[in-house]
Formats: sequence, structure tokens, C-alpha cells
Amino acid sequence: MDAKLIVDEVRLTPILISDPPLLNVQGVHQPYTPRLVVEVVTRGGVSGLGETYGDTVYLDIAGRLAEVLPGRSITDVNALFALSESVDPHQADVDPAVDAGGLRGVRTADKLRLSVVSAFETACLDALGRTLGLPVHALLGGKVRDSVEYSAYLFHRWATHPAGGPVDDWGAALDPAGIVAQARRFDRLHGFRSFKLKGGVFEPEREIAAIRALAEAFPGRPLRLDPNGAWSVETSLAVARELGDVLEYLEDPASGTDAMAEIAARTDVPLATNMCVTTFEEVPEAFAKEAVRIVLCDHHYWGGLGRTRELAALCRTYGVGLSMHSNTHLGISLAAMTQVAATLPGLHHACDTHYPWQTEDVITTRPVFRAGRLAVSDAPGLGVDLDRDALAALHHRWLSDDGTHHDRDDTAAMRGAAPDWKPSSW
Amino acid sequence: MDAKLIVDEVRLTPILISDPPLLNVQGVHQPYTPRLVVEVVTRGGVSGLGETYGDTVYLDIAGRLAEVLPGRSITDVNALFALSESVDPHQADVDPAVDAGGLRGVRTADKLRLSVVSAFETACLDALGRTLGLPVHALLGGKVRDSVEYSAYLFHRWATHPAGGPVDDWGAALDPAGIVAQARRFDRLHGFRSFKLKGGVFEPEREIAAIRALAEAFPGRPLRLDPNGAWSVETSLAVARELGDVLEYLEDPASGTDAMAEIAARTDVPLATNMCVTTFEEVPEAFAKEAVRIVLCDHHYWGGLGRTRELAALCRTYGVGLSMHSNTHLGISLAAMTQVAATLPGLHHACDTHYPWQTEDVITTRPVFRAGRLAVSDAPGLGVDLDRDALAALHHRWLSDDGTHHDRDDTAAMRGAAPDWKPSSW
Repeated sequence: MDAKLIVDEVRLTPILISDPPLLNVQGVHQPYTPRLVVEVVTRGGVSGLGETYGDTVYLDIAGRLAEVLPGRSITDVNALFALSESVDPHQADVDPAVDAGGLRGVRTADKLRLSVVSAFETACLDALGRTLGLPVHALLGGKVRDSVEYSAYLFHRWATHPAGGPVDDWGAALDPAGIVAQARRFDRLHGFRSFKLKGGVFEPEREIAAIRALAEAFPGRPLRLDPNGAWSVETSLAVARELGDVLEYLEDPASGTDAMAEIAARTDVPLATNMCVTTFEEVPEAFAKEAVRIVLCDHHYWGGLGRTRELAALCRTYGVGLSMHSNTHLGISLAAMTQVAATLPGLHHACDTHYPWQTEDVITTRPVFRAGRLAVSDAPGLGVDLDRDALAALHHRWLSDDGTHHDRDDTAAMRGAAPDWKPSSW
Repeated sequence: MDAKLIVDEVRLTPILISDPPLLNVQGVHQPYTPRLVVEVVTRGGVSGLGETYGDTVYLDIAGRLAEVLPGRSITDVNALFALSESVDPHQADVDPAVDAGGLRGVRTADKLRLSVVSAFETACLDALGRTLGLPVHALLGGKVRDSVEYSAYLFHRWATHPAGGPVDDWGAALDPAGIVAQARRFDRLHGFRSFKLKGGVFEPEREIAAIRALAEAFPGRPLRLDPNGAWSVETSLAVARELGDVLEYLEDPASGTDAMAEIAARTDVPLATNMCVTTFEEVPEAFAKEAVRIVLCDHHYWGGLGRTRELAALCRTYGVGLSMHSNTHLGISLAAMTQVAATLPGLHHACDTHYPWQTEDVITTRPVFRAGRLAVSDAPGLGVDLDRDALAALHHRWLSDDGTHHDRDDTAAMRGAAPDWKPSSW
């Protein structure tokens, strides 16, 4: 194998990025969220970028994988899975009841490991593309569209974090009027056509009212509501009845495949998920029970861009729609999402992204949404360059932190404001 | 996009290759079988190779696709599917009752088109690999094994074609002793560990006796029997009972998903197929009915190497095993099969190949099986080079043919010997 394709070094940089006080069923986003930046440097002197969750459990696995990668080829991404299994110290001792942020389904050792592998795979593909002068999408068989549509990700939120921290100029949004104002600003700034509201924060009536207000303010636009499994089957069905005429889909109204299947059987409103179908192991049961009509893929926890394409093939085969999930992320992940999304023939729904909420980044040039879409870069690799000063500053923040923000914990952040707070369900 | 990646020209060369008088449920292989060699030539002067079925219906589609490819990038393999749909004149007028050779499931316009696309995709990947200095497996994420196992493909056969034609030195094999002798020779020449017998030729008792004889001659070796759907459910179950202790799997004992599912429900012998699961559309029903435990993928009719990887992901997700099907083919297809097979983690059964039966080829160096395995080439592209003299000679044969062999027709060949012959079923 050509020496220039051999991994010389892997650099792992945990960072903390500022995050606004967005509300969800688990609590509130902390002022700072951990992310991990992975750089795979080849003997040819090319550096490829990847980004993933930065909580300590991911850092542990990433550290072990980084040790064994040098000497291997950046083309060997299929081998990363077995390699990660061989080094993962957490296979046996993961608490399956806890997940990162509580918002992306059951936590398993596999899923943690795949989230790490995804960043290494992305970094290898970026390095390979840069070495060969090819965009990542060309390494995935080529784009089938020139731009990828994203949706506006609306949140009930506070103006400021209760314990202090970064302040943005979005202000609070705690009622339908606030949500509509937020949507108008997203529409003005980025031209998003479709809107997703994070639900599960207030009683369903208030969230129904917010969606109704959006439907009035933006007639005919695709609208989505996602309470992260906070509702019972009956509540979910009641919401579906109320909003069936305006919803593109209802995302994870209730928790678990059986509840989703029961809802699906009793409503015509399409159900989407990033919680009950989050691994290949969960696919057969959910598809057999017709629990969901749309799967929100996420290259982080499905294991990378190649696995995302495999999931897309599964969905296409079973007549299940596809969209894309997002957690708080930076421009490296956004570029990866856009590159793989460009190659998926069956992507008929706008992708989610938290990106417009992020004021900081580690890349040199922020991507610009036009009419809610990102142009697919044809530059080599992912098409983004690392801003080393910005990376150093965010890493310094991580180093300076007392550990409070090294593991994302929306519930702890909420309890900082309301000590007795517990997640609600309706 | 780099000019050296742009398609400058596509060359299509239909050829006739000599084929021995191998017997199957549809009749007998003709003395000459049509194949199509696809060359995709880039503006960088690199030529990539693909090979597929050469019957006239494929040539028609290939001709149209070849016209629209120049000017496009060889990296754009995902786009080949939509492109082929846009040029295919046969979408509406394919007789679904007839298939190429009768041995690979229902014939549809889609499947014909995908068989053509596969050769173009392979040729693009070969050209891309040659241009970049990378083996095709590296373009598919990298190999996960260094060699790929193949099985010996045993046939009842005549010594010579009834209407004349090429003669080899294998002689006839029309009884268990003949099959064992054939197996011994395959074992000696290529070291194959597992043996597959093409069935559906004689009454089941005679084929059971052949498998029994193989089991005695080669204790413990994996054995397979494939009557191409010639048996009823009851006959299939009777054979399964007779041979359950020695069969690795029984391949397409009966025709159609429902019959296969009924057999599967009533025997522990694993069932494999390349007839009831031959397209993505057929997967959900077959998997839901648990009709098969092993799918024999074939990059030709599944649409190429990328689609083969997607099928493998589907099988892995649903706990269905994977092996590889073969029709009469040359060294280009064998190289393509080996490159993609090398990347599939779940490939736990030896792949089928007719290749050892072929005495002619269009590549410069015949691959060598060692202990039944082919080493995975790390040379750029597929790792095979075109023998232009051989290609010209086989094309000349095609040009000189009166049309008798331009479309494979095993039944017509058999009726040349026995005018009233009809396919049997038991």
C-alpha cells in the first residue's frame, strides 16, 4: 500500500463548545457541551477530520482506537469495526439504562463504540479524499444531488443559562408566539422551508398550540414535533388527531417500539424515530411491527458514512422513509452529514441540524444555508479546514473545566435551577 | 472534477465463449455462451473493465447507457441507476415469464437493467482504482480478509455437445461415480473444500445418491445441492430428510418464496437461494416468511459491487447468511466477485463459481485457486488486464455466429438432441 495512505498519527482533541439553554424532556442544554475532534494524519502529511460525542466514555474508547491506528491504511475503514471491538474496554460494563443526553435511545456498548468509529471513519475518508483530490461523496459513489435540505430546529428555551455562561441574542421562547418568532428568524437567516419543534417540555396542549401557530404563520410548510418519547400512547394519538392536518411527521411521540407500533396502527400521521431504531439490531422488529415510517439516521451512532448508506439501503428496501437526526455538533459533522446525504437517493425529508444554534466552530469558514439548503462541496475531502486557534481555545476551555461539563447532563443542568425537577411524561 | 476521471469513451464488446455441455433443469449449456465486455476509457487514458450477460436484450440497454456516459465522472457510480432508467427501452416490454437461462428467478426490466449497470459500475471502479493506484476493494472500504473461498461447482454433464462444438477432456458425468470423479479432479486441481452439485437434472434419488457418494468420498466437507426449483415441497422435504446429516445447505429446492417458506418451516436443513431473492423488492417478503437462511448474492443482477455490499448489510441485519451465486463468467467477473467478497464481514460460506469450467478468457493471466481460495489482489483496480487478441478472437466468433448463440437458451440446446424434451419437475 502506498506509504502516503498510511496513518502516521491520530490526534484527539476534546473540546467544550458553548450551547444555548435549549429545553427538552431531559432538562436543559448545559452552557458547554463536550465534543471530540479526531485528526487522522497520514505519512503523506495529510490530515483528515472527524467529530463525535465528547463525553468521557467516548474519549476512553477513542484513546484506545487512536493507539492502534498508526501503520494502518486510511482506506481500511471496514476494518475499524472489528478493530474497535478489540480495544473497547467498555463492552461489558455499560449501564444500558443511561444514554448520552437521554435522547437517542437505549445506550449500549456497541452504540458508544460505533459513535467513536464514526469519527475515525469520517477522518479517514476526509484524509483519503484530500490525498486523492476527491470529495468524500465521490468516495461514497458520488452525489445524486447538488444541495441538501435542512430543517429549522425550534426549541423552547430560556434567554440565559440559570447558572450563568454564554449568552446569545435569541432571547426566551416559552410560548407559541416565542416559537413563531424563533421560526421567523430562522426563516430570515437561513431560508429553512421546514420546521421541527422539540417537544416534551410543556404539557402537550401548549406544544400543540405552538405547532398550530407555526401552521398559521407558515401555511403549507412541513412541520414536525418531537417530544422524545415523553407521551403515552393515548396522548400521542390525541396529539396526532389534533395536528394530523399540518404535520409532516410526529417524531418519537412515545418510548419504545411497541408503543410506537400501537400509535402507528391507530393514526395516519407518519411516525419518525431516532430513539427506537438507533442500531441495526433494532431494525427488524421495528420494521416488522411497522412502528415507524421514517428513520432519522445519524452517522455518529450508526457507525459512520458507510453504515449510513447501508441503513438507507435497508429503509429503501422496506419502503421506510429517511431523514437525518442531529445532536449539538459543529461544522465537521455538518460537512460529513451533507456529504453522505448527497449520495442517498431516498432522502425525501429535510435533515435536522442544531448547527444554527452554535456560535462557535473549529473550522475556518462557516457554511451558509441558502433557502434552507447547503451546497454539496466538491472540494477534496469533507471540504472544511481546521481553525487551529479556535480548536486550541475550545480545548483550553475543556482543560480548564472542573469536570462539570465533561459529560453532557441536561438533567443536572435543569436541577441547578430547580433542584427537585424530574422529567415529565404525559 | 479532475479531467482524468471523465469518461471519454465506452467500448462494448459482445463475445461468445466456449462452454461445456453442463446439464441443468432448463436443459444443457450451449457450446457457446454470450458475454459482454465493457471498457470505460477515461480522458486520462485509463481503461476500466466490466463483464456481464451478453444476450441481445442486455446489449440493447448497454448500448444506450454507453452513449450517455462520456463526459460523466467515473466516480459517479450512484448515478448509474437513474441514468440507466432514463435510457432503458425495455422497461415496459419485458416478458416476466422468461429469464436468462431460466435459472436466476423472475425476469424483470429492473433486473435486466441492473445486470447492465453492474458491468458499468465495475468498469468505473476498475478505472478509478487504476487511476488512483488503489485496488477496488479499497474503494469499497477495504478488504477484511486476504483470500476468498470458492466451492467446486459440480455438474452432471455429457462428454460432448450433441450438435458439435468445443470438446474438453472432462468426459461425461451422469451418475454418482462420475460426480465423485469430477469432484476429485476439482479437488486435485484447485483444492476446493466445499462442493456444490447442480441438481434438478435426474430424478431426486439419483442426485441424493450422488451427494451420498460425495459425503463418503469427502467426509466432513461442506456439500450443497441445487435443483433450481425443480422439486415440489414434499419432494424437497424428502430430500432434506435423506441428506440433512451431510448438507451445508439445500439451494432453491422448490420454486417461489411460499414454497421455500413451507419447506423451511418443516426442516432444519438451511435453505439458500439465488432464485426467490434476486432483487431488493423480493427481500422483505422472503425474510418475513423466513423462506431462506442464506442469500446467494450476484453482483451482476443485484446491480454492482456497491449494491452487493448493501445486500450484505441487509442480510447481516436480519441474521441471514450470505454466499455468492455464479453463472458462466470469465476472469473480469471473477476478479470483481473476489474484490467485493473480500470486503464483506458476514461471508461465512464459500462462493460459487463456474470459472474452472471455462477454458477461454479475455484476461492475460488466469487466477490460480489455492486450497479453493483466491488471493485478494492489491494491485490497482480489479487487478486483471485485458488480452486484446483473445477479446478480438471471441468477438470474431460472436460476429461470425448466425445468431444461434447470441441468446443463451439451454432448452433449445437440449431439444437439438431430444426434440420433445421438456423441463422435469418432481
